[in-house]
Amino acid sequence: MSLDNELDAFYDDVARADLQPLWRQQRNLMPHHPRPETKAWLWQWKTLRALAERAGELITIERGGDRRVLSLANPGLGGQPFATPTLWGAVQYLGPGESAPGHRHTPGAIRFVLEGDGVYTTVNGDGCDMHPGDLILTPSWSWHDHNNRSDAPMIWFDGLDLPFVVQLEAVFFQEYPGDVLQPVEGEHNRSARLFGGRGLQPVGAREPGRRHSPLLVYRREDTDAALDALLAERGGPLASLEYVSPTTGGPALPTMSCEMHRLVPGVRTTPVRRVGSSVVVVYSGAGRSVIDGQRFEWSTGDMFVIPSWAVTDHQASESADVFVITDRPILEAFGLYREETLDAAQEVTGQFEPDEDLRGPGHWS
Amino acid sequence: MSLDNELDAFYDDVARADLQPLWRQQRNLMPHHPRPETKAWLWQWKTLRALAERAGELITIERGGDRRVLSLANPGLGGQPFATPTLWGAVQYLGPGESAPGHRHTPGAIRFVLEGDGVYTTVNGDGCDMHPGDLILTPSWSWHDHNNRSDAPMIWFDGLDLPFVVQLEAVFFQEYPGDVLQPVEGEHNRSARLFGGRGLQPVGAREPGRRHSPLLVYRREDTDAALDALLAERGGPLASLEYVSPTTGGPALPTMSCEMHRLVPGVRTTPVRRVGSSVVVVYSGAGRSVIDGQRFEWSTGDMFVIPSWAVTDHQASESADVFVITDRPILEAFGLYREETLDAAQEVTGQFEPDEDLRGPGHWS
Amino acid sequence: MSLDNELDAFYDDVARADLQPLWRQQRNLMPHHPRPETKAWLWQWKTLRALAERAGELITIERGGDRRVLSLANPGLGGQPFATPTLWGAVQYLGPGESAPGHRHTPGAIRFVLEGDGVYTTVNGDGCDMHPGDLILTPSWSWHDHNNRSDAPMIWFDGLDLPFVVQLEAVFFQEYPGDVLQPVEGEHNRSARLFGGRGLQPVGAREPGRRHSPLLVYRREDTDAALDALLAERGGPLASLEYVSPTTGGPALPTMSCEMHRLVPGVRTTPVRRVGSSVVVVYSGAGRSVIDGQRFEWSTGDMFVIPSWAVTDHQASESADVFVITDRPILEAFGLYREETLDAAQEVTGQFEPDEDLRGPGHWS
Amino acid sequence: MSLDNELDAFYDDVARADLQPLWRQQRNLMPHHPRPETKAWLWQWKTLRALAERAGELITIERGGDRRVLSLANPGLGGQPFATPTLWGAVQYLGPGESAPGHRHTPGAIRFVLEGDGVYTTVNGDGCDMHPGDLILTPSWSWHDHNNRSDAPMIWFDGLDLPFVVQLEAVFFQEYPGDVLQPVEGEHNRSARLFGGRGLQPVGAREPGRRHSPLLVYRREDTDAALDALLAERGGPLASLEYVSPTTGGPALPTMSCEMHRLVPGVRTTPVRRVGSSVVVVYSGAGRSVIDGQRFEWSTGDMFVIPSWAVTDHQASESADVFVITDRPILEAFGLYREETLDAAQEVTGQFEPDEDLRGPGHWS
Repeated sequence: MSLDNELDAFYDDVARADLQPLWRQQRNLMPHHPRPETKAWLWQWKTLRALAERAGELITIERGGDRRVLSLANPGLGGQPFATPTLWGAVQYLGPGESAPGHRHTPGAIRFVLEGDGVYTTVNGDGCDMHPGDLILTPSWSWHDHNNRSDAPMIWFDGLDLPFVVQLEAVFFQEYPGDVLQPVEGEHNRSARLFGGRGLQPVGAREPGRRHSPLLVYRREDTDAALDALLAERGGPLASLEYVSPTTGGPALPTMSCEMHRLVPGVRTTPVRRVGSSVVVVYSGAGRSVIDGQRFEWSTGDMFVIPSWAVTDHQASESADVFVITDRPILEAFGLYREETLDAAQEVTGQFEPDEDLRGPGHWS
Repeated sequence: MSLDNELDAFYDDVARADLQPLWRQQRNLMPHHPRPETKAWLWQWKTLRALAERAGELITIERGGDRRVLSLANPGLGGQPFATPTLWGAVQYLGPGESAPGHRHTPGAIRFVLEGDGVYTTVNGDGCDMHPGDLILTPSWSWHDHNNRSDAPMIWFDGLDLPFVVQLEAVFFQEYPGDVLQPVEGEHNRSARLFGGRGLQPVGAREPGRRHSPLLVYRREDTDAALDALLAERGGPLASLEYVSPTTGGPALPTMSCEMHRLVPGVRTTPVRRVGSSVVVVYSGAGRSVIDGQRFEWSTGDMFVIPSWAVTDHQASESADVFVITDRPILEAFGLYREETLDAAQEVTGQFEPDEDLRGPGHWS
Repeated sequence: MSLDNELDAFYDDVARADLQPLWRQQRNLMPHHPRPETKAWLWQWKTLRALAERAGELITIERGGDRRVLSLANPGLGGQPFATPTLWGAVQYLGPGESAPGHRHTPGAIRFVLEGDGVYTTVNGDGCDMHPGDLILTPSWSWHDHNNRSDAPMIWFDGLDLPFVVQLEAVFFQEYPGDVLQPVEGEHNRSARLFGGRGLQPVGAREPGRRHSPLLVYRREDTDAALDALLAERGGPLASLEYVSPTTGGPALPTMSCEMHRLVPGVRTTPVRRVGSSVVVVYSGAGRSVIDGQRFEWSTGDMFVIPSWAVTDHQASESADVFVITDRPILEAFGLYREETLDAAQEVTGQFEPDEDLRGPGHWS
Repeated sequence: MSLDNELDAFYDDVARADLQPLWRQQRNLMPHHPRPETKAWLWQWKTLRALAERAGELITIERGGDRRVLSLANPGLGGQPFATPTLWGAVQYLGPGESAPGHRHTPGAIRFVLEGDGVYTTVNGDGCDMHPGDLILTPSWSWHDHNNRSDAPMIWFDGLDLPFVVQLEAVFFQEYPGDVLQPVEGEHNRSARLFGGRGLQPVGAREPGRRHSPLLVYRREDTDAALDALLAERGGPLASLEYVSPTTGGPALPTMSCEMHRLVPGVRTTPVRRVGSSVVVVYSGAGRSVIDGQRFEWSTGDMFVIPSWAVTDHQASESADVFVITDRPILEAFGLYREETLDAAQEVTGQFEPDEDLRGPGHWS
């Protein structure tokens, strides 16, 4: 038998034994630096809004299809309904008088309100009112339902760590038993009363086992004021806030960092690349971002994805507040986070291969 | 030689060798439960204020005696200028136009403002304005000086972990080099602009090595609002807040917990005893506390000490806000914190000896 | 237009906009409990060994295909060369006198030796000798090459977190610069000399930033003795050890738990299901495992996969030592780990749906 | 009234009000660097041993004086039976056939065996055998009694954090209820069987709430082998090991670091000063130490104290193993630890005042 024939027979036998030879794919599995399947991609608000509205007309909400949600499906991810390999992004639409039934699941979620007023989400008995620009948490395994008591529809952005938990094969889900909605205990916004102080917490508030923020609502007016103060202190072109747990200072949810960035118009940010992926939601303003050489124009309501290790810069044409979720806490938990600021020379030559100075530990978190 | 003589000779030899026999003092060294040297004690505001004012007239502030401070000297502590074995409490007086020169030391300090307006403390270049009811931090080894730019004197409470650091023989001290005062960088209250958000922090704000809060000022109006909200949520007779680091959720300083408690008038709190000592400063209101059977009447400005393991309850005659520093973080760091709520029966019989149910780990933090 | 037509048009528009309707797939994305794609699967040693040997004859090792490795390709994972969604398992074969060139990558790896003697792996300059039953670590981003100085081939099991790091799009890879092999510094097995004490570490050994064990070699004789001692203390049918970092007590690598279990013959272990997946390598002995009702017979050298939440029990026919890697540290980092012991009744009825008692937090780590 | 009279009256009134003026003692309270009360001091073994033996003849062990212990009383500490402000050091003597009754206390203790064989200490039911050079832990609040089953007396060093816990007024103490001795459960040395592996722990061994090592016995032969290996790897003149918890890598007890140092004869170690105090027990060998300019000759069995911030070097005349307890974990917990290596110039001039380069954070842990 010739060597070629022997090799063919060998590879056949390997495949039949449910094995694969590493040496034939090492370069793909182990590239010099991340080569994401995930694509940089942008969804326009006018499309999202129009389709959400049509869904509101055509689709009813009921048990089994508990939510009227359109998810961002990244074209690089083979038809999965995922924005990035770890993050779910979506628009959710709730019509006047509607309720979305109670359930809970191990994936953790955040809601960032884009349009409308008068909805509240009940989270483990706490009625959390939702206004434009507010961030609402529904942490892993907490009961939650949404209720629109207004006479107008409401639209918000849903961010979840669902793709991550799906990959871990760790999804549990339960319908709220008995009734469709859980009872609201006491006045709305309890978590804000208990945990909304400035550096002030109830004595004994810290629970070692709790991994998510006990503060479930973060108000637009607070974010706005904090961005003003940060910009006044540090100057532009970029002020960056993280929504944190007031009892740990860590991310609001253990798997996702939630951030708000304010871009001063006219100034381009320094190009940077980071390990890990993000979903960006333009809360207000307009501008453009360049992601690995591809230019995206954006304005209020648009959503876009930044893949891992993609060189990215932003420039607002009018003052812009952009909300971001990233999977950085996952990468940091295992020492896999890395970021790099690029100087002008690197940009021009496109020399982004790992080089000597990447070998030091300084680039790693 | 008789046995008695032999014993005497033995004990002489032991003492001469700089040794001591444990069996002669085990009961004192190892009581069944803490028997503090520290005494429950109260200092009245009218005395404190009058003496502080006389000090203002008689004593000038200058290098070498950098501060005009009268310290609470617990009568149980053998003439040391300490409020408790771990905590320093004092009143500090700064006349109109005066400055207290810059220095730093390894003991950490807090300032709680009692009277006056218009002083600022510069902490590592950040000018921190001080108003009644505000809490200001000067963490371990941070440069600080105090400056009264108003035309009235100002009095505040100083709390330090000085006795603790003294016992550890770990005190370092330095005068600010060159000038008496450090320059203020930029606008006052920088720390509040950067770290004063509600669950919002600058991206990258958390520094693993930093043990104290980067927020250096806590405003009275925030404390007041947070107490209102907490009382609304949980009811009385007691609402208890801790001042925390917004980047860790832990105590503002690593060695001291700073707290504010609001007492609803007319209701007596449940008697409790805790390992560790506290200094209480009455910010407003009036009432009485019973500490190991001894009754103390108090009103605005009074200060008192609660020793370790002393059974204590409080009752306000008019709504009271009391500021407290405790050494609980030290005890908790080593698994030595313990607290116990007493029921009526125990109070009546005085049966406070450790009993069966103390053996379980549940009483220990 | 009829409703059906409207719906069709709507779904077309949704798809064209790179969106997906959640309500059509909620049940699949959010099952009541994990329904893994990953299959329980077993690879027999005689097949693995024979194919590894043929690879040794047919394939040379050289730059670009740095390793002669056959990876376990789980039939449930769509043709990917992965044992589970997070774990890579493989056999690696190194002939007499061969070397596998130096490189490093962000995925972390362990080597568990199955056959042969006389190979050493150089890890950041430390020559780590490999004997049957030894565990060798090559943590994330550490330089490593393998060298067979014996006159016999050597086979070991490779375990990596590669699928996990691939999903995060966080793979970096570098060839060792210049030479193919890194120089060995000093005597072999330095890490064992420094960190191999029993509860003894060099003063200052703990580095806060280091996430992996500084001990790189774990010897078979130590594992054997520790299993003997554990079994003597606790009895059977199962003694379970984890290989830990001596400077943290945590897992040897941050993403993977490495364990050795000894099964006493004749006794069936209690059925249990756990969130997260494992790869099992039979080091010695024989027995059978039942995984979600499917029976697998195994003996020395066989490897098999336990998917997430699969009810599993084991029974050895002769005393067995089985080596296991699991992704539990990933799940625990985010509060997603959960395990459940099943009683006889549940097994008989197959009632494994989440029920009331799963709602409490007690089942979660 | 003259100013002097006014001042006198003022200081009288201040004292009467249980206050003290800081400005009169700032220099003492806040020295530029630690000026310990604690004295460098040495106790000779021949004295310690002789007095321990006489105590064995004269003193019986019984309830109420549970232990035959002679404690090191530092002459700088005003007659207290303490070796340093935080550490208790003592020799304990147990005659043939004697037992010391069971009790427990919140101060944590270690036993380091100096002479004799055949004693075991029961710790929460685990019989821990004691041989020369072994370290035995009796952590905070664990039941313990000592039993000499041999026909010779036994002497060991007791180290406790008692002075620290006394200052915190946090001492609790209980006699073992009912019998004088607790029953031993199973074979002796259970903790070594469970936790004595090399980088190997029972699955699930780590308990978040536990602050002390679950390994209660550290054997001389292991320490000896680890010192050999460390010296072989790093060279002399000093090899330094810490006894750690195998489940955390942290100190064996939360308040005390236990260390063993081997000094190569003839070489003087570099002078160093550290914040915090130590008690040194010479296990074997001989040499001299210079502590703040004072020379101490020592040989086997001698014990000496190194005060905080005292410049210290050592030189063995014959190979020496010295056991050390320090309070460093307390200082590190609050960011108060600092150490400094002195160069020759500093030694000669005695210029140890804090200078410019102390201002940076680099000198602080």
